Amino acid sequence: MPELAIRNLFARRSIRQFKDAPVTPEQVTLLLQAAMAAPSAGNRKPWHFVVVRDAVTRARIAASHPYCKMATAAPVVLVPCGDPGLSFADRPAFWVQDLAAATENILLAALGLGLGAVWCGVYPNEERVADARQFLHLPPEIIPFAYVPIGVPAEEKEARTQYDADRVRFERW
Amino acid sequence: MPELAIRNLFARRSIRQFKDAPVTPEQVTLLLQAAMAAPSAGNRKPWHFVVVRDAVTRARIAASHPYCKMATAAPVVLVPCGDPGLSFADRPAFWVQDLAAATENILLAALGLGLGAVWCGVYPNEERVADARQFLHLPPEIIPFAYVPIGVPAEEKEARTQYDADRVRFERW
Repeated sequence: MPELAIRNLFARRSIRQFKDAPVTPEQVTLLLQAAMAAPSAGNRKPWHFVVVRDAVTRARIAASHPYCKMATAAPVVLVPCGDPGLSFADRPAFWVQDLAAATENILLAALGLGLGAVWCGVYPNEERVADARQFLHLPPEIIPFAYVPIGVPAEEKEARTQYDADRVRFERW
Repeated sequence: MPELAIRNLFARRSIRQFKDAPVTPEQVTLLLQAAMAAPSAGNRKPWHFVVVRDAVTRARIAASHPYCKMATAAPVVLVPCGDPGLSFADRPAFWVQDLAAATENILLAALGLGLGAVWCGVYPNEERVADARQFLHLPPEIIPFAYVPIGVPAEEKEARTQYDADRVRFERW
Protein backbone atom coordinates (compact mmCIF):
# COMPACT_ATOMS: atom_id res chain seq x y z
CA MET A 1 0.00 0.00 0.00
CA PRO A 2 2.51 2.56 -1.15
CA GLU A 3 0.15 5.51 -1.09
CA LEU A 4 -0.52 5.23 2.63
CA ALA A 5 3.18 5.58 3.30
CA ILE A 6 3.26 8.89 1.46
CA ARG A 7 0.03 10.14 2.97
CA ASN A 8 1.63 9.57 6.34
CA LEU A 9 4.40 12.00 5.41
CA PHE A 10 1.78 14.60 4.50
CA ALA A 11 -0.18 13.89 7.70
CA ARG A 12 2.78 14.60 9.97
CA ARG A 13 2.10 18.01 11.48
CA SER A 14 3.56 19.75 14.49
CA ILE A 15 1.27 18.93 17.43
CA ARG A 16 1.59 21.30 20.34
CA GLN A 17 -1.52 20.49 22.40
CA PHE A 18 -1.85 17.26 24.28
CA LYS A 19 -4.56 15.45 26.19
CA ASP A 20 -4.06 14.34 29.77
CA ALA A 21 -3.41 10.80 28.61
CA PRO A 22 -0.40 8.53 28.87
CA VAL A 23 2.30 7.46 26.45
CA THR A 24 3.21 3.89 27.31
CA PRO A 25 6.71 2.47 27.70
CA GLU A 26 5.97 0.21 24.75
CA GLN A 27 5.16 3.25 22.61
CA VAL A 28 8.38 4.94 23.68
CA THR A 29 10.33 1.86 22.66
CA LEU A 30 8.66 1.87 19.23
CA LEU A 31 9.50 5.56 18.83
CA LEU A 32 13.13 4.86 19.64
CA GLN A 33 13.21 1.84 17.34
CA ALA A 34 11.98 4.15 14.59
CA ALA A 35 14.63 6.73 15.47
CA MET A 36 17.38 4.14 15.32
CA ALA A 37 16.12 2.88 11.95
CA ALA A 38 17.22 6.20 10.43
CA PRO A 39 20.16 6.31 8.07
CA SER A 40 23.44 7.81 9.27
CA ALA A 41 26.67 8.68 7.52
CA GLY A 42 28.64 5.47 7.21
CA ASN A 43 26.00 3.88 9.46
CA ARG A 44 27.90 5.21 12.48
CA LYS A 45 24.69 5.90 14.45
CA PRO A 46 26.17 8.82 16.45
CA TRP A 47 23.15 9.13 18.73
CA HIS A 48 21.77 8.66 22.21
CA PHE A 49 18.28 9.35 23.49
CA VAL A 50 17.11 10.60 26.86
CA VAL A 51 13.51 9.80 27.78
CA VAL A 52 12.17 12.50 30.11
CA ARG A 53 8.93 11.93 32.02
CA ASP A 54 9.79 13.76 35.24
CA ALA A 55 7.58 16.84 35.61
CA VAL A 56 10.33 18.95 37.17
CA THR A 57 12.65 18.34 34.25
CA ARG A 58 9.85 19.00 31.77
CA ALA A 59 9.13 22.30 33.49
CA ARG A 60 12.80 23.23 33.22
CA ILE A 61 12.77 22.39 29.53
CA ALA A 62 9.68 24.55 29.01
CA ALA A 63 11.25 27.43 30.92
CA SER A 64 14.50 27.28 29.00
CA HIS A 65 13.12 27.17 25.45
CA PRO A 66 10.78 29.82 24.03
CA TYR A 67 8.95 27.39 21.73
CA CYS A 68 8.80 24.35 23.97
CA LYS A 69 6.18 25.41 26.54
CA MET A 70 4.15 22.33 25.70
CA ALA A 71 6.80 20.19 27.41
CA THR A 72 4.80 20.66 30.61
CA ALA A 73 1.66 19.14 29.07
CA ALA A 74 3.29 16.31 27.13
CA PRO A 75 3.75 13.21 29.28
CA VAL A 76 7.10 12.47 27.69
CA VAL A 77 9.85 14.49 26.04
CA LEU A 78 12.42 12.63 23.98
CA VAL A 79 15.83 14.26 23.75
CA PRO A 80 17.95 13.01 20.85
CA CYS A 81 21.61 13.75 21.58
CA GLY A 82 24.60 13.74 19.25
CA ASP A 83 27.89 12.02 19.95
CA PRO A 84 30.29 13.33 17.28
CA GLY A 85 32.99 10.99 18.56
CA LEU A 86 30.99 8.09 17.13
CA SER A 87 31.11 9.59 13.62
CA PHE A 88 34.01 9.09 11.28
CA ALA A 89 36.97 11.15 12.46
CA ASP A 90 37.29 12.84 9.08
CA ARG A 91 33.65 13.84 8.86
CA PRO A 92 32.21 14.37 12.31
CA ALA A 93 29.92 17.18 11.16
CA PHE A 94 27.53 14.69 9.57
CA TRP A 95 26.18 13.84 13.04
CA VAL A 96 23.79 16.80 12.79
CA GLN A 97 22.15 15.36 9.69
CA ASP A 98 22.01 11.89 11.23
CA LEU A 99 20.25 13.24 14.31
CA ALA A 100 17.81 15.20 12.18
CA ALA A 101 16.86 12.07 10.22
CA ALA A 102 16.34 10.17 13.48
CA THR A 103 14.21 13.02 14.84
CA GLU A 104 12.05 13.11 11.72
CA ASN A 105 11.54 9.36 12.14
CA ILE A 106 10.35 9.93 15.72
CA LEU A 107 7.76 12.45 14.51
CA LEU A 108 6.54 10.07 11.84
CA ALA A 109 6.42 7.12 14.21
CA ALA A 110 4.45 9.18 16.73
CA LEU A 111 1.84 9.83 14.07
CA GLY A 112 1.80 6.16 13.21
CA LEU A 113 1.02 5.35 16.85
CA GLY A 114 -1.81 7.88 17.07
CA LEU A 115 0.38 10.27 19.04
CA GLY A 116 1.43 13.83 18.30
CA ALA A 117 4.85 15.41 18.55
CA VAL A 118 6.77 18.56 17.77
CA TRP A 119 10.47 19.20 17.08
CA CYS A 120 11.91 21.96 19.25
CA GLY A 121 15.42 22.76 18.08
CA VAL A 122 18.18 22.91 20.68
CA TYR A 123 21.53 22.59 18.87
CA PRO A 124 23.22 24.83 17.70
CA ASN A 125 21.66 27.43 20.03
CA GLU A 126 24.39 27.74 22.67
CA GLU A 127 22.13 28.73 25.56
CA ARG A 128 19.69 25.92 24.93
CA VAL A 129 22.55 23.44 24.65
CA ALA A 130 24.02 24.63 27.95
CA ASP A 131 20.65 24.44 29.70
CA ALA A 132 19.87 20.94 28.47
CA ARG A 133 23.33 19.77 29.35
CA GLN A 134 22.71 20.92 32.91
CA PHE A 135 19.17 19.46 33.32
CA LEU A 136 20.15 16.13 31.85
CA HIS A 137 23.63 15.83 33.34
CA LEU A 138 25.13 15.24 29.92
CA PRO A 139 28.86 14.59 29.64
CA PRO A 140 30.77 17.29 27.76
CA GLU A 141 31.12 15.27 24.58
CA ILE A 142 27.36 14.67 24.26
CA ILE A 143 25.37 17.38 22.49
CA PRO A 144 21.64 17.80 23.14
CA PHE A 145 20.08 18.11 19.70
CA ALA A 146 16.35 18.72 20.17
CA TYR A 147 13.40 18.37 22.50
CA VAL A 148 10.52 16.29 21.16
CA PRO A 149 7.42 16.55 23.39
CA ILE A 150 5.06 13.66 22.67
CA GLY A 151 1.52 12.92 23.77
CA VAL A 152 -2.01 12.12 22.69
CA PRO A 153 -3.04 15.00 20.40
CA ALA A 154 -5.58 17.54 21.61
CA GLU A 155 -5.57 19.30 18.25
CA GLU A 156 -6.20 18.14 14.71
CA LYS A 157 -4.43 19.43 11.65
CA GLU A 158 -5.04 18.55 8.04
CA ALA A 159 -2.51 16.62 6.03
CA ARG A 160 -0.59 18.82 3.62
CA THR A 161 2.47 19.24 1.52
CA GLN A 162 3.92 22.70 1.23
CA TYR A 163 5.10 21.86 -2.28
CA ASP A 164 6.19 24.90 -4.23
CA ALA A 165 7.10 24.38 -7.88
CA ASP A 166 9.30 27.49 -7.75
CA ARG A 167 11.67 25.56 -5.51
CA VAL A 168 12.28 22.90 -8.16
CA ARG A 169 14.86 23.12 -10.93
CA PHE A 170 15.52 20.60 -13.66
CA GLU A 171 19.04 19.50 -14.60
CA ARG A 172 20.68 22.69 -13.31
CA TRP A 173 19.89 25.95 -11.58
CA MET B 1 -3.31 1.46 10.15
CA PRO B 2 -0.67 2.85 12.42
CA GLU B 3 1.60 -0.14 12.38
CA LEU B 4 2.17 0.04 8.65
CA ALA B 5 3.48 3.56 9.07
CA ILE B 6 6.11 2.36 11.50
CA ARG B 7 6.97 -0.72 9.48
CA ASN B 8 7.69 1.65 6.61
CA LEU B 9 10.33 3.38 8.72
CA PHE B 10 11.96 0.03 9.41
CA ALA B 11 11.71 -0.97 5.74
CA ARG B 12 13.62 2.07 4.52
CA ARG B 13 17.07 0.84 3.60
CA SER B 14 19.83 2.33 1.50
CA ILE B 15 19.34 1.00 -2.02
CA ARG B 16 22.41 1.24 -4.23
CA GLN B 17 21.51 -1.05 -7.12
CA PHE B 18 18.91 -0.09 -9.66
CA LYS B 19 17.13 -1.74 -12.55
CA ASP B 20 17.14 -0.24 -16.01
CA ALA B 21 13.64 1.12 -15.45
CA PRO B 22 12.23 4.63 -15.39
CA VAL B 23 11.17 6.95 -12.60
CA THR B 24 8.24 8.97 -13.89
CA PRO B 25 7.78 12.73 -13.62
CA GLU B 26 4.70 12.05 -11.49
CA GLN B 27 6.82 10.00 -9.08
CA VAL B 28 9.39 12.78 -8.90
CA THR B 29 6.65 15.26 -8.04
CA LEU B 30 5.41 12.99 -5.25
CA LEU B 31 8.94 12.67 -3.90
CA LEU B 32 9.29 16.45 -3.85
CA GLN B 33 5.86 16.87 -2.27
CA ALA B 34 7.03 14.53 0.47
CA ALA B 35 10.27 16.49 0.86
CA MET B 36 8.38 19.76 1.20
CA ALA B 37 6.04 18.24 3.78
CA ALA B 38 8.99 18.06 6.19
CA PRO B 39 9.11 20.31 9.22
CA SER B 40 11.54 23.22 9.25
CA ALA B 41 12.60 25.67 11.94
CA GLY B 42 9.94 28.34 12.08
CA ASN B 43 8.47 26.74 8.94
CA ARG B 44 10.92 28.78 6.88
CA LYS B 45 11.39 25.98 4.31
CA PRO B 46 14.97 26.95 3.42
CA TRP B 47 15.22 24.50 0.53
CA HIS B 48 15.39 24.06 -3.21
CA PHE B 49 15.63 20.83 -5.20
CA VAL B 50 17.45 20.08 -8.43
CA VAL B 51 16.16 17.10 -10.42
CA VAL B 52 19.01 15.58 -12.41
CA ARG B 53 18.29 13.09 -15.17
CA ASP B 54 21.05 14.05 -17.61
CA ALA B 55 23.55 11.20 -17.91
CA VAL B 56 26.54 13.52 -18.23
CA THR B 57 25.71 15.28 -14.98
CA ARG B 58 25.05 11.96 -13.26
CA ALA B 59 28.46 10.72 -14.40
CA ARG B 60 30.06 13.87 -12.99
CA ILE B 61 28.29 13.30 -9.68
CA ALA B 62 29.51 9.70 -9.58
CA ALA B 63 33.07 10.78 -10.38
CA SER B 64 33.13 13.49 -7.73
CA HIS B 65 31.77 11.49 -4.78
CA PRO B 66 33.39 8.28 -3.51
CA TYR B 67 30.10 6.76 -2.32
CA CYS B 68 27.80 7.90 -5.11
CA LYS B 69 28.91 5.69 -7.99
CA MET B 70 25.35 4.45 -8.37
CA ALA B 71 24.36 7.87 -9.71
CA THR B 72 25.23 6.53 -13.15
CA ALA B 73 22.71 3.67 -12.86
CA ALA B 74 19.89 5.60 -11.16
CA PRO B 75 17.64 7.31 -13.70
CA VAL B 76 17.25 10.34 -11.48
CA VAL B 77 19.31 12.02 -8.79
CA LEU B 78 17.57 14.53 -6.54
CA VAL B 79 19.77 17.23 -5.09
CA PRO B 80 18.30 19.00 -2.05
CA CYS B 81 19.98 22.37 -1.63
CA GLY B 82 20.00 24.71 1.34
CA ASP B 83 19.30 28.43 1.19
CA PRO B 84 20.34 29.77 4.62
CA GLY B 85 19.06 33.21 3.67
CA LEU B 86 15.52 31.84 3.88
CA SER B 87 16.04 30.82 7.53
CA PHE B 88 15.58 33.23 10.40
CA ALA B 89 18.48 35.68 10.47
CA ASP B 90 19.24 34.81 14.09
CA ARG B 91 19.31 31.07 13.56
CA PRO B 92 20.43 30.28 10.02
CA ALA B 93 22.26 27.12 11.09
CA PHE B 94 18.99 25.23 11.44
CA TRP B 95 18.81 24.91 7.66
CA VAL B 96 21.00 21.79 7.85
CA GLN B 97 18.47 20.01 10.06
CA ASP B 98 15.58 21.14 7.86
CA LEU B 99 17.29 19.75 4.77
CA ALA B 100 18.03 16.48 6.54
CA ALA B 101 14.38 16.05 7.49
CA ALA B 102 13.34 16.74 3.90
CA THR B 103 15.92 14.24 2.64
CA GLU B 104 14.70 11.54 5.02
CA ASN B 105 11.18 12.18 3.72
CA ILE B 106 12.41 11.64 0.14
CA LEU B 107 13.89 8.28 1.13
CA LEU B 108 10.67 7.22 2.83
CA ALA B 109 8.51 8.40 -0.04
CA ALA B 110 10.68 6.50 -2.51
CA LEU B 111 10.04 3.33 -0.56
CA GLY B 112 6.33 4.13 -0.53
CA LEU B 113 6.37 4.36 -4.32
CA GLY B 114 8.18 1.06 -4.74
CA LEU B 115 11.43 2.85 -5.53
CA GLY B 116 14.81 2.71 -3.84
CA ALA B 117 17.10 5.55 -2.84
CA VAL B 118 20.28 6.33 -0.97
CA TRP B 119 21.48 9.49 0.79
CA CYS B 120 24.97 10.52 -0.31
CA GLY B 121 26.17 13.37 1.88
CA VAL B 122 27.61 16.45 0.18
CA TYR B 123 27.56 19.33 2.69
CA PRO B 124 29.71 20.06 4.71
CA ASN B 125 32.44 18.37 2.64
CA GLU B 126 34.01 21.37 0.93
CA GLU B 127 35.25 19.56 -2.17
CA ARG B 128 31.90 17.91 -2.80
CA VAL B 129 30.12 21.21 -2.29
CA ALA B 130 32.43 22.95 -4.78
CA ASP B 131 31.97 20.19 -7.35
CA ALA B 132 28.19 20.17 -7.11
CA ARG B 133 28.08 23.93 -7.28
CA GLN B 134 29.96 23.75 -10.55
CA PHE B 135 27.94 20.91 -12.17
CA LEU B 136 24.63 22.44 -11.22
CA HIS B 137 25.50 26.11 -11.77
CA LEU B 138 24.36 26.98 -8.25
CA PRO B 139 24.48 30.61 -7.14
CA PRO B 140 26.94 31.28 -4.32
CA GLU B 141 24.26 31.51 -1.63
CA ILE B 142 22.82 28.07 -2.46
CA ILE B 143 24.46 25.10 -0.76
CA PRO B 144 24.21 21.60 -2.26
CA PHE B 145 23.25 19.35 0.61
CA ALA B 146 23.14 15.78 -0.67
CA TYR B 147 22.79 13.57 -3.73
CA VAL B 148 19.86 11.16 -3.64
CA PRO B 149 20.02 8.63 -6.50
CA ILE B 150 16.60 7.05 -7.03
CA GLY B 151 15.41 4.17 -9.17
CA VAL B 152 13.63 0.86 -9.25
CA PRO B 153 15.49 -1.38 -6.77
CA ALA B 154 17.66 -4.21 -8.06
CA GLU B 155 18.42 -5.37 -4.54
CA GLU B 156 16.27 -6.35 -1.59
CA LYS B 157 17.04 -5.67 2.01
CA GLU B 158 15.15 -6.74 5.08
CA ALA B 159 13.34 -4.24 7.26
CA ARG B 160 15.18 -3.52 10.48
CA THR B 161 15.70 -1.20 13.34
CA GLN B 162 19.18 -0.85 14.71
CA TYR B 163 17.72 -0.24 18.17
CA ASP B 164 20.31 -0.43 20.90
CA ALA B 165 19.06 -0.19 24.49
CA ASP B 166 22.48 1.06 25.55
CA ARG B 167 21.77 4.27 23.67
CA VAL B 168 18.71 5.03 25.80
CA ARG B 169 18.75 6.84 29.15
CA PHE B 170 15.79 7.57 31.38
CA GLU B 171 15.28 10.98 32.99
CA ARG B 172 18.96 11.92 32.84
CA TRP B 173 22.32 10.63 31.67
